[in-house]
Amino acid sequence: MTAFDINCDMGEGFGNWRMSDDAGVMPLISSANIACGFHAGDPVNMQTVVRLAKENGVAVGAHPGLPDLLGFGRRVMSVTPNEIYAYIIYQTGALKGFLEAEGMKINHVKPHGAMFLVLKDRILADAAIDAIQAVAPRAAIYWSGPAGREPFTVRAAERGLKVVYEAYPDLHYSDEGSLVIERHKAPVEANLVYERVREILTEKTLLNRNGVKLPMDVDSVCIHSDSPNSIEMINAAREAIADSDRVLGCPTNQ
Amino acid sequence: MTAFDINCDMGEGFGNWRMSDDAGVMPLISSANIACGFHAGDPVNMQTVVRLAKENGVAVGAHPGLPDLLGFGRRVMSVTPNEIYAYIIYQTGALKGFLEAEGMKINHVKPHGAMFLVLKDRILADAAIDAIQAVAPRAAIYWSGPAGREPFTVRAAERGLKVVYEAYPDLHYSDEGSLVIERHKAPVEANLVYERVREILTEKTLLNRNGVKLPMDVDSVCIHSDSPNSIEMINAAREAIADSDRVLGCPTNQ
Amino acid sequence: MTAFDINCDMGEGFGNWRMSDDAGVMPLISSANIACGFHAGDPVNMQTVVRLAKENGVAVGAHPGLPDLLGFGRRVMSVTPNEIYAYIIYQTGALKGFLEAEGMKINHVKPHGAMFLVLKDRILADAAIDAIQAVAPRAAIYWSGPAGREPFTVRAAERGLKVVYEAYPDLHYSDEGSLVIERHKAPVEANLVYERVREILTEKTLLNRNGVKLPMDVDSVCIHSDSPNSIEMINAAREAIADSDRVLGCPTNQ
Amino acid sequence: MTAFDINCDMGEGFGNWRMSDDAGVMPLISSANIACGFHAGDPVNMQTVVRLAKENGVAVGAHPGLPDLLGFGRRVMSVTPNEIYAYIIYQTGALKGFLEAEGMKINHVKPHGAMFLVLKDRILADAAIDAIQAVAPRAAIYWSGPAGREPFTVRAAERGLKVVYEAYPDLHYSDEGSLVIERHKAPVEANLVYERVREILTEKTLLNRNGVKLPMDVDSVCIHSDSPNSIEMINAAREAIADSDRVLGCPTNQ
Repeated sequence: MTAFDINCDMGEGFGNWRMSDDAGVMPLISSANIACGFHAGDPVNMQTVVRLAKENGVAVGAHPGLPDLLGFGRRVMSVTPNEIYAYIIYQTGALKGFLEAEGMKINHVKPHGAMFLVLKDRILADAAIDAIQAVAPRAAIYWSGPAGREPFTVRAAERGLKVVYEAYPDLHYSDEGSLVIERHKAPVEANLVYERVREILTEKTLLNRNGVKLPMDVDSVCIHSDSPNSIEMINAAREAIADSDRVLGCPTNQ
Repeated sequence: MTAFDINCDMGEGFGNWRMSDDAGVMPLISSANIACGFHAGDPVNMQTVVRLAKENGVAVGAHPGLPDLLGFGRRVMSVTPNEIYAYIIYQTGALKGFLEAEGMKINHVKPHGAMFLVLKDRILADAAIDAIQAVAPRAAIYWSGPAGREPFTVRAAERGLKVVYEAYPDLHYSDEGSLVIERHKAPVEANLVYERVREILTEKTLLNRNGVKLPMDVDSVCIHSDSPNSIEMINAAREAIADSDRVLGCPTNQ
Repeated sequence: MTAFDINCDMGEGFGNWRMSDDAGVMPLISSANIACGFHAGDPVNMQTVVRLAKENGVAVGAHPGLPDLLGFGRRVMSVTPNEIYAYIIYQTGALKGFLEAEGMKINHVKPHGAMFLVLKDRILADAAIDAIQAVAPRAAIYWSGPAGREPFTVRAAERGLKVVYEAYPDLHYSDEGSLVIERHKAPVEANLVYERVREILTEKTLLNRNGVKLPMDVDSVCIHSDSPNSIEMINAAREAIADSDRVLGCPTNQ
Repeated sequence: MTAFDINCDMGEGFGNWRMSDDAGVMPLISSANIACGFHAGDPVNMQTVVRLAKENGVAVGAHPGLPDLLGFGRRVMSVTPNEIYAYIIYQTGALKGFLEAEGMKINHVKPHGAMFLVLKDRILADAAIDAIQAVAPRAAIYWSGPAGREPFTVRAAERGLKVVYEAYPDLHYSDEGSLVIERHKAPVEANLVYERVREILTEKTLLNRNGVKLPMDVDSVCIHSDSPNSIEMINAAREAIADSDRVLGCPTNQ
């Protein structure tokens, strides 16, 4: 049985502020994208979440963002290739510090929020790939599926980086297959998450709200750990995997 | 001929602000302590300074500070052992990211300003040594000489970390051998720096302003790169080394 | 009937992070201490909380802190009188901007966390009082009671500033009458809050955990809005006031 | 003789970092745009620069920026009307705190860098004007001339705000009259600044590098205080004013 992954953004508190229940979520998932201090996260937080991942055998990736704590890294900024390169090296290097301290390896890099958006630009995408190859050459890239539609993943594959595609069963997709980001997320019911993950696993498609069946050949689903019903949704995804011929696990974990 | 080191704090700008002439200083020194973004420094800056060091064959160390950009890391804060541990892992990890990207190794860790001061506490010192061993086990520690007087260096040596002791020929020392930090540094003339470095090299002592001869058996001198006459002072130190039986170089560089 | 006040620290989120239920708490209290962006709070947050206060007829004060978002302003830092002066002017000025925009006046200034602690120093206390007199000359000062034991309040009174003393019925007091700040607050039951507020109102004393009756002649109680049972505790305090010959209200509100 | 203004961006250091020679520039100019802590500036710095302005009889305005210290407020960010409103209230309020402490009044508001750029959007412009009217109703707006071409100034004038138009004799203008912002500013010679200010004063035009004569009916010139030859350029502008029928002064100073 091959692995199918559930990933969550983790460690997205800052100082005394918390965003999600990292200790409750960690035992339920197979890979964790850890905030690195730019859009969220701080050193003590990173240390705590890395140890939680270790205890639970969860694969760890860097979740680098733009330097915008106030906007949670969700505001697009005009950044240069140099800046993107250095921001990814810095954040991924910092996370690797915590991983090395625990005898762990970095599994992947997944750009956060507006950093994901600016990497749709070809030149910034190249700078980001340069950075990932330089600082974490064996790490995979997590990217929103389906496969191969964007400069970032096309170039990443050309240059020999593994790409893991993921779906977002707790968000909505347009008829063209793009994610619809709503400012105020309406909660998605756990049984819809079950149905969507099951559809992904069995048919490699995702039926959107308008009844359009989108191709969705992915090996991971991302559940937002800051939703009020995140634990329920993750359990629904786990159940769908249990009911399939796949097994919960990170496809690139070493 | 054995190596004698000149080290400087480098990359202590932030964004558009500059603190010192990194490009002018780098070719003249043998090791660079690079600010890591907490008291000064930022990713683009770190990238630039690491490349400058590589071009000039200069050994690179992390220069971690307390999280206080506004106070340039010079204000003592009440921090916990956990915090110190995580702050050092984070900053050193980030620097290692830039070094690995350039195929370089970290040579040392030198705590900055108020982080140096809080590490006079035995428990915080232990936490810092844990962090350095975890994130950079082969790195040396740079510490203000003479040797072996403080919990930090005593414990570091017990635990097998190399310690490089350094003198500050552009600062003043009390009769007890402590550094006198003045809020507004009076510039030190280059020929006094020459005399002091010469005395360190030949007699392993330093004559303070009051005429007290202090023991100063060290293998490195630190010159402040943000002084108006830093280049002159560094050249004076270089001359003193050239006039001795030592050769400019980092004693721990691999 | 004279006014007796319930105050809460409000607006202590930052960006997307929240600390307490500002909208739930505001209708229940008589004065709000609003975080001003240094230890917590941000412009959008301040705007929201000021409008909430206006809608509910709640008196508004500045809650300035040390510049330490990462430590929530709870870490003592070595600051100069100049810095304290400028930090209070800046934060209070910013809050006054939002108040003026709503046609409101500033009622008070209440130092937060480690800023409260450093103001136990006589020279820093003087700098803080200079700042408050310069930026908000008619504002009262909220300070932990009982009255007149500290350089800050002694000097404030000498210089003609109103001081409102407050008790903390959800914290513990030592036998000497100092607050015992515990890193992990044990929740205080609502009926204990009722008993303590009742005792303050009727006897002007507070019985601590050791059975010592402390003098507690105060006109306000502060309830921590970030406690899990804050709403319950505030309602208990309201009930105790309703059962007394005082009426809920801010004693200095104009 | 009517007043003609020289304005400079001032207080654009942060903590220990300096950007320009505020003490050298202040005696030479008639109005100062003071950074308020978002793109540059900090409370101690603001306090110092406000006092310098007071000593030299210079009119003071707020110079609010986007919250991006790392990018010096020069990176466009996707911000909401709510955010722009709150950022301007906060920064202008903070500056007013320092002014009130010195018995001074705010003369103007001049948006900095990328905040200036995003205010070309009509909806954000409206939010900014709402903020300025709410927090500083008698303040003028400084804006790049010539007059009346942008939603921001058109709306500002409709709503009764004074607008002072300014020229940038040390930058370059396109043939359409837009400022050409170059990443690495080539220094402009002082005698060219003299010629341009003279042309503005006598002909209300500005001849660009391509020989195109642009309309330039303005009452102020802005000289960048962070240029290496800023003092020389300011003196050249002063000379051109002295040689005209105008007198150095801020047209809106009360």
